[in-house]
Amino acid sequence: MNEITVLAPATVANVVCGFDCLGFCLENPNDLMTLRLIDEKTVRIKHHDDYDLPTTIGENVAGKALLALLERVDENLGFEVEITKEIMPGSGIGSSAASAAGAVVAANKLLGERFNPNEVIEMAMQGEMIASGSKHADNIAPCVLGGFTLVRSVEPMDVISIEYPPLFAAVIHPQIEIKTSYAREILPKEVPLKSAIRQWADVGSLIAGLQKGDYDLISRSLQDFIVEPVRKTLIPCFDEVKKVSLEAGALGGGISGAGPSVFMFGQTRKIAEKIAEKMTDVYAPTGIEFKIYVSAINCHGVRTQ
Amino acid sequence: MNEITVLAPATVANVVCGFDCLGFCLENPNDLMTLRLIDEKTVRIKHHDDYDLPTTIGENVAGKALLALLERVDENLGFEVEITKEIMPGSGIGSSAASAAGAVVAANKLLGERFNPNEVIEMAMQGEMIASGSKHADNIAPCVLGGFTLVRSVEPMDVISIEYPPLFAAVIHPQIEIKTSYAREILPKEVPLKSAIRQWADVGSLIAGLQKGDYDLISRSLQDFIVEPVRKTLIPCFDEVKKVSLEAGALGGGISGAGPSVFMFGQTRKIAEKIAEKMTDVYAPTGIEFKIYVSAINCHGVRTQ
Repeated sequence: MNEITVLAPATVANVVCGFDCLGFCLENPNDLMTLRLIDEKTVRIKHHDDYDLPTTIGENVAGKALLALLERVDENLGFEVEITKEIMPGSGIGSSAASAAGAVVAANKLLGERFNPNEVIEMAMQGEMIASGSKHADNIAPCVLGGFTLVRSVEPMDVISIEYPPLFAAVIHPQIEIKTSYAREILPKEVPLKSAIRQWADVGSLIAGLQKGDYDLISRSLQDFIVEPVRKTLIPCFDEVKKVSLEAGALGGGISGAGPSVFMFGQTRKIAEKIAEKMTDVYAPTGIEFKIYVSAINCHGVRTQ
Repeated sequence: MNEITVLAPATVANVVCGFDCLGFCLENPNDLMTLRLIDEKTVRIKHHDDYDLPTTIGENVAGKALLALLERVDENLGFEVEITKEIMPGSGIGSSAASAAGAVVAANKLLGERFNPNEVIEMAMQGEMIASGSKHADNIAPCVLGGFTLVRSVEPMDVISIEYPPLFAAVIHPQIEIKTSYAREILPKEVPLKSAIRQWADVGSLIAGLQKGDYDLISRSLQDFIVEPVRKTLIPCFDEVKKVSLEAGALGGGISGAGPSVFMFGQTRKIAEKIAEKMTDVYAPTGIEFKIYVSAINCHGVRTQ
């Protein structure tokens, strides 16, 4: 096999109370990526979209991730990459993670799966660092593994797949720009111990609820008293979106990544579609452009097309 | 049935990263409690031990808990209670919780199980408040339900039973006094957000590890960078006890409750016994009196003798 085409899915990080550790994988949108093996130790990148992303290897997320992979390969080989991004950069649903994870997973398939999932995640993380400026695997891990993932630690890499019951997400992406660096800057450096305890009790219960398939418990645990109150101020109509979603039957939800996307969980696709309608009703009058996705949890992660 | 005798077990709260929410139940030691129904709306308490605990109803943990129960009972009835405490007050392994939970569980059995577990926990918590000065169910919940419990919230009461694989605990109780109020006082009021995130990632992984029966994951998650560094200074030889326990094969462990007891998990009874030996080796030369317990996780909680 000298050529492979994969779909690299969008992902949600910072799942409510699980800030900076819990993420999950969406069924759509997806980036389309084709990789071809070449007999030169380099990476060539071509973008078939309008996002004007850099194609210089070292500045391109997929390129940088593939370079990290090539460093671990003795043979004289490289990759030609064609990318059609459907996940808009800056949307907060793991656009750069999809490029990095998609590239490394595809390359690893061309090389006969010689790297294990932890190694794949590590190499993809090297690529994503260009975009995020920090080492985190909160989007990379669910993009590679699918489902829900808990990143316990990145040094050493320790990623845990979390079992979950049927779940659907409605995601709204208001097309405003939020700089991740600013979203980080406004976070408190210190938090009251009491709030921290409340948050870790909720993280524990959310994991328990997901693994038990207990929707009520999942719903009760989807609270965040630390990050959401600060960051929601950057997202127009956040409270209104949340309110109408809960009224439409959402189990809960919050800011995806550092925003501006907002996601809400529904127990069925029908509920998620209803939530999406209500989200639309809130955003339509604002004049802000937005996209809406309804998706099951994607249990595969990156997959061959 | 007019009389019942129950064993009310010791419990461990503040399970490492799960400070203020995660606890589990020990097989021993146990308090022995006999309750008799009487036709007078009161509680009479007799202690058969040397701990000189108050027997005035309103000042006695079991008495206060039973009063909370009697407030919810219309009939003209009350209880005579005989208590033989084996769990030393102030040991940090849920002595007052055992008195409160034992009394309410036993009374509820005499009344034909008319209260559900959440109600039993709430009433027992009323009793334990005398001893702890605050409303918390971290020892009460595992004492009533057995196994591992996560207290997500006390108002409203929300307790989750956590599945777990075969696990054993070695517990050392150095007979020094640590005032719970002082142990609370020295805690930081604020913690770095980074440390809080690390802690909630560990809580999430610990719950995942317990439910998956993944001993390695349990072991990796048993870390506490917030409370243990502060409170361990109150416990002589804490670091040494931990070190020899890990060398003997412990998965991890930490301070039980607010101390002074220290617990360590072993995957088998044999390992837990070896850990207990090593703990003994550390404490024997110090001249500090101590007790050691080796115990499986008690899946029943309070039970009829």
